Amino acid sequence: MTTIAAPVDPECDPRVRAVFDDIRATRRTDHVNAFWRHLAFDAALLERTWAEVKTVMATPSALDPLTKELVYIAVSIANGCSYCVHSHTAAARAKGMTVAQHADLLAVVALAAKTNQLATALQVAVDPAFDQATRGAD
Amino acid sequence: MTTIAAPVDPECDPRVRAVFDDIRATRRTDHVNAFWRHLAFDAALLERTWAEVKTVMATPSALDPLTKELVYIAVSIANGCSYCVHSHTAAARAKGMTVAQHADLLAVVALAAKTNQLATALQVAVDPAFDQATRGAD
Amino acid sequence: MTTIAAPVDPECDPRVRAVFDDIRATRRTDHVNAFWRHLAFDAALLERTWAEVKTVMATPSALDPLTKELVYIAVSIANGCSYCVHSHTAAARAKGMTVAQHADLLAVVALAAKTNQLATALQVAVDPAFDQATRGAD
Amino acid sequence: MTTIAAPVDPECDPRVRAVFDDIRATRRTDHVNAFWRHLAFDAALLERTWAEVKTVMATPSALDPLTKELVYIAVSIANGCSYCVHSHTAAARAKGMTVAQHADLLAVVALAAKTNQLATALQVAVDPAFDQATRGAD
Amino acid sequence: MTTIAAPVDPECDPRVRAVFDDIRATRRTDHVNAFWRHLAFDAALLERTWAEVKTVMATPSALDPLTKELVYIAVSIANGCSYCVHSHTAAARAKGMTVAQHADLLAVVALAAKTNQLATALQVAVDPAFDQATRGAD
Amino acid sequence: MTTIAAPVDPECDPRVRAVFDDIRATRRTDHVNAFWRHLAFDAALLERTWAEVKTVMATPSALDPLTKELVYIAVSIANGCSYCVHSHTAAARAKGMTVAQHADLLAVVALAAKTNQLATALQVAVDPAFDQATRGAD
Repeated sequence: MTTIAAPVDPECDPRVRAVFDDIRATRRTDHVNAFWRHLAFDAALLERTWAEVKTVMATPSALDPLTKELVYIAVSIANGCSYCVHSHTAAARAKGMTVAQHADLLAVVALAAKTNQLATALQVAVDPAFDQATRGAD
Repeated sequence: MTTIAAPVDPECDPRVRAVFDDIRATRRTDHVNAFWRHLAFDAALLERTWAEVKTVMATPSALDPLTKELVYIAVSIANGCSYCVHSHTAAARAKGMTVAQHADLLAVVALAAKTNQLATALQVAVDPAFDQATRGAD
Repeated sequence: MTTIAAPVDPECDPRVRAVFDDIRATRRTDHVNAFWRHLAFDAALLERTWAEVKTVMATPSALDPLTKELVYIAVSIANGCSYCVHSHTAAARAKGMTVAQHADLLAVVALAAKTNQLATALQVAVDPAFDQATRGAD
Repeated sequence: MTTIAAPVDPECDPRVRAVFDDIRATRRTDHVNAFWRHLAFDAALLERTWAEVKTVMATPSALDPLTKELVYIAVSIANGCSYCVHSHTAAARAKGMTVAQHADLLAVVALAAKTNQLATALQVAVDPAFDQATRGAD
Repeated sequence: MTTIAAPVDPECDPRVRAVFDDIRATRRTDHVNAFWRHLAFDAALLERTWAEVKTVMATPSALDPLTKELVYIAVSIANGCSYCVHSHTAAARAKGMTVAQHADLLAVVALAAKTNQLATALQVAVDPAFDQATRGAD
Repeated sequence: MTTIAAPVDPECDPRVRAVFDDIRATRRTDHVNAFWRHLAFDAALLERTWAEVKTVMATPSALDPLTKELVYIAVSIANGCSYCVHSHTAAARAKGMTVAQHADLLAVVALAAKTNQLATALQVAVDPAFDQATRGAD
């Protein structure tokens, strides 16, 4: 069941082909997963989305690649995106996530969701000590 | 505005006092933030919640303390918990989060939310390669 | 801060006046809370929304009034609606919710949010025993 | 997998039959989709829900029918409702949504989800210029 | 499709076996449902999660067992957790939920979600009458 | 209250200044709203976010500018982003949204949230008629 028929032969479109080639090269795999094959229904949306994924996830930055995948999984769980939980859990394993780290991640996500509910239920006002507005730039 | 009046003198209750003492000792601070002071309206709920926070967040485990805070912030953003975003951003700073790491965290959270929506919109079926069900235990 | 200016004198409109009169009579109070005074910007939306609230919440049905308020609070917490958490916590108190019941409610909501995240993280397939599709009507 | 067994012969109940007849007439189709066939487990809930859908979606109003479907899809994506994303994407196509409009819709939904996260992460205070509270009625 | 391979023979681990035995004894059934069999990938996470479920849901408290299940279902719907909606709807039936109560629950959940959106859309300020902050402890 | 201190003099950074100039030119206003002034804490994140907003929202495309704002508001409501609901409601007014259109938008958003909950509660299987997977490309 899907809401978009994936193009039968998406790489006929040279813009799609270029993105798929870059996905294969960046990830060092022949597998272009279903998300990209469906997003290929619109070349511009595919290009912009891949460009952002590549910039944020595949470019060296302040956080290491595994930490970024853990954050990605956490957000995907909180948003209830089944596909994304699957694909990013697989990606995290490929980047070295151990079973113990996976369990730890789930413990933090579950605890955060729990205390999020409690704070929302209590409607606690934010402690002035947490405010950054009255400080100068970091 | 709050839905619960924080107890005026919560530490009269020895169970509450014991939790607050442990919070101060564990965090090496005199400040018991508003979340805990409000949750003190029910000593059992306070005890169980703090016990879990201490176990998950303040006990050495497979993920380092800063990574756990980053995941906590990510979930709190996705769940729209204003109080929690404030308190855990402050906690992450206290554990060494740099401005560059903060910006990187936000870039990943924002990207994840975006692709979560796209995958949900397309209702893409999960690639068999991502499934763990047919494998043995890790 | 609001996105709609509440009408200055909403009861000039007889349709709004009729709804406000019914709110006051049904709830036995002179206070028409801010939600309704803002929703009065569109008489038809106000009428339909109040009619549904009255039917579902103020008409005797299979669940008692307090249980319905507890469910309303739970959904409002999960959806992160600050106004609704406030107004329905107040309503539940007015209908007799004790402090112990409030604490119990929060414990269940927090636990549910936690196991929701775990089940979503694991992407567990539903046990056939839980399925109703192969049964006849209840 | 479902949590409610759809009634085997729902139209035995004249209240259900009347709703189904109205669905068929309003939509000019013989197909009563699964949502309504399951909701038929409670005639009153079915009647009220269909009455609202008909009033809001099938009655001429300030927004045209396709725009209303696009908004419906957007909310269904944000709420992660798989069934609703499917049914309302199909409905939007039936009302003339082009592939280019679909791609545009997804780009806006994805962008909104992204900036929602950023604004929540930053906890930016609302600009006074956006407030309507200090103005008179529109 | 799952992100974790359930351990093939989880009860080899005595910690897992003890939890499963307690689940069977507490619920008076031989069926350990899939959630727990998957969570068994990490014995500590399994132990802590079950301990909390048992404390909150299976210990006599201020709310009766069926009311707690109704709240659990409501949160699971709002969070879009398919597995949890299935398992807790089944649990509520086992604890005596009637079809009329189920329909009533759904009516309240649906109404709450609707007014949550309206209040969020209007950004209504909370009525001072709903505030508990200026009162003493209950 | 904010989690990031907005830079005191953000336009000292030529990259920030270039973005702010483009915002002012694109929107024909001197007002750079708080979201952008806070996001300026990281020039790269600011640049990428504005570039996407400009491409998606300010470039002629398959949907007209007002429809895109309505979708943006709908997603922001569903995600509970207070700031975004305010800023995009103001933007929609500026692009011509009437009070009647605003009321209509809220009616659709509220209805969608309601039926989202019902469909999730019932766990209805998607009708085969809604599936696009077995069709060729549109």
